[in-house]
Amino acid sequence: MSRSTASRALNEETYVSPQARQAVRAAVRDLGYSPNQAARSLVTKRTGGVALVLSEPESMVLDDPYYLVAMRAAFRELANRGSQMLVMFVDNKEDIPRTMKFLDGGHVDGVLVFAPHIGDPLATALRLLRVPVVFGGSSVANGKGLYTVDYDNTSGAKLAVEYLLARGRRRIVTVSGPRDQRSARDRLAGWRETMAAAGLAWEGLAEAADFTQTGGDIAMQRLLDRVPDLDAVFAASDPMAAGAMRALHSAGRRVPDDVAVIGFDDNPRVAPLLDPPLTSVHQDPGEQVREMIEMLLRLLSGEQPPQRHLVLPVSLTTRQSA
Amino acid sequence: MSRSTASRALNEETYVSPQARQAVRAAVRDLGYSPNQAARSLVTKRTGGVALVLSEPESMVLDDPYYLVAMRAAFRELANRGSQMLVMFVDNKEDIPRTMKFLDGGHVDGVLVFAPHIGDPLATALRLLRVPVVFGGSSVANGKGLYTVDYDNTSGAKLAVEYLLARGRRRIVTVSGPRDQRSARDRLAGWRETMAAAGLAWEGLAEAADFTQTGGDIAMQRLLDRVPDLDAVFAASDPMAAGAMRALHSAGRRVPDDVAVIGFDDNPRVAPLLDPPLTSVHQDPGEQVREMIEMLLRLLSGEQPPQRHLVLPVSLTTRQSA
Repeated sequence: MSRSTASRALNEETYVSPQARQAVRAAVRDLGYSPNQAARSLVTKRTGGVALVLSEPESMVLDDPYYLVAMRAAFRELANRGSQMLVMFVDNKEDIPRTMKFLDGGHVDGVLVFAPHIGDPLATALRLLRVPVVFGGSSVANGKGLYTVDYDNTSGAKLAVEYLLARGRRRIVTVSGPRDQRSARDRLAGWRETMAAAGLAWEGLAEAADFTQTGGDIAMQRLLDRVPDLDAVFAASDPMAAGAMRALHSAGRRVPDDVAVIGFDDNPRVAPLLDPPLTSVHQDPGEQVREMIEMLLRLLSGEQPPQRHLVLPVSLTTRQSA
Repeated sequence: MSRSTASRALNEETYVSPQARQAVRAAVRDLGYSPNQAARSLVTKRTGGVALVLSEPESMVLDDPYYLVAMRAAFRELANRGSQMLVMFVDNKEDIPRTMKFLDGGHVDGVLVFAPHIGDPLATALRLLRVPVVFGGSSVANGKGLYTVDYDNTSGAKLAVEYLLARGRRRIVTVSGPRDQRSARDRLAGWRETMAAAGLAWEGLAEAADFTQTGGDIAMQRLLDRVPDLDAVFAASDPMAAGAMRALHSAGRRVPDDVAVIGFDDNPRVAPLLDPPLTSVHQDPGEQVREMIEMLLRLLSGEQPPQRHLVLPVSLTTRQSA
């Protein structure tokens, strides 16, 4: 067989005979005996590498304690299963073609991805990959053929607001997260529905921020101006709760005496260290990542996971802030 | 040619004729036309991926602001040059074989590595790679055939101590870093030599810690017990300086009135935010990473860099703590 025939066979050009194509593929499989691992991956279909792709603007990804915990847990869990974690950042649209080229290049066995922004073109691009992909979070949950692991954000918000209601709070404002993130939208909806179900007003009691401490501080200042008689805050992330507490402190409001505060994350590096320690909706990025890896490994072994969209339950960790 | 001949040819078994070997290699080169990138990398020798390997116990790597800034800078710099950064963690010895297998598997074009601990077996293993490797830091600088980019740690310590001497401080203690790290040893030596050159006692005035805030706090408490008349501290990292300041505050010593404090890093997320803002030896992980990438790209294009061991100059950023 000529070299050009071999090339055409591998390119699946239609005018190569089935026999020739089969012979070339057999030869390619034999390359598995080459000392070069890149050739071997053609045969075993396994490189030992699993990508953890974080699609977030550069300024956010390393400041968000959620990602730090997720990275650490994914590394250890994959290592325990003999796989090598490769962290890849995607900062903006321009990074996508290069990222896709590597992911589709036979270098990784599968992909774990956090792409929380609704409409992120990376989520669409990842559907074209020939390796399995599992998403953390459900911004893309409506997409067909995708696998997701997420926390029950709506129920988490409901838990927080019901706890505040049970303690007699009635003017419960919320510092919500970015409107382009499904988790933020679901937490906002959970707050609104619980307020409405209790017959309480909610219009004008929400202020969106960017999940950061500074954002939470500014949003809380606006809420204090607009709703001076507020008696509780549900913040959709722990850093935003920290910012809200700073704004309340500056305004001379005592936590929890004047204003009760509940966060969302229960991050061990944030919530218990605040003053006063923060009551927060508990979710564990480590657990989420372990479930994502479990799902990915099933897909790699050719099985279907029991559910395409796994939703993990949340709980409330109570401390002194509410 | 039979499949077994092809396999033997690729295995470089001696009883395959040179002609057969050449034919198989030509066929392998033609695989470059396959849509599979793993095959293509046999031909172009480029995958677009550059690994950033961080060899540090898991508990340290994501808590150290130096690595966070280095990761961010490496990602952006590599992206600007069309390469994809892959962050890989090495937590302990057991992680090394898996890491090496991936790095040697034809998946990356080159490796940037931070392996600060003297005697880290990863540094030895990396010499076996067929792709270029550039080290950040010089723990392994004595090794032949290695490329390193480091800051001038000895001169940095000298700058700090000379600044304190010029302001009349005489009982200058140091919170030094881990003894198994070259940078920590060099900073300690710089302090000791400058003290000795000024005719001042230095025995018993050093206490080692682990580069963390908690470590700096504990070391400072020991120094306060042992050297109650101390009037200045040179801490070998910003987090240790923060811990030392906390211990001084608890002991009722004013900074800088009673005790002047100088750190090392000048990390923008630590030094200016301390109370009082920290005078610190300036080094920039972003600059270090950019020089490492520059060196790596030269090696990838077949050039020799001007120096195998590049040492970057440091300066002192003065604020209120000294």
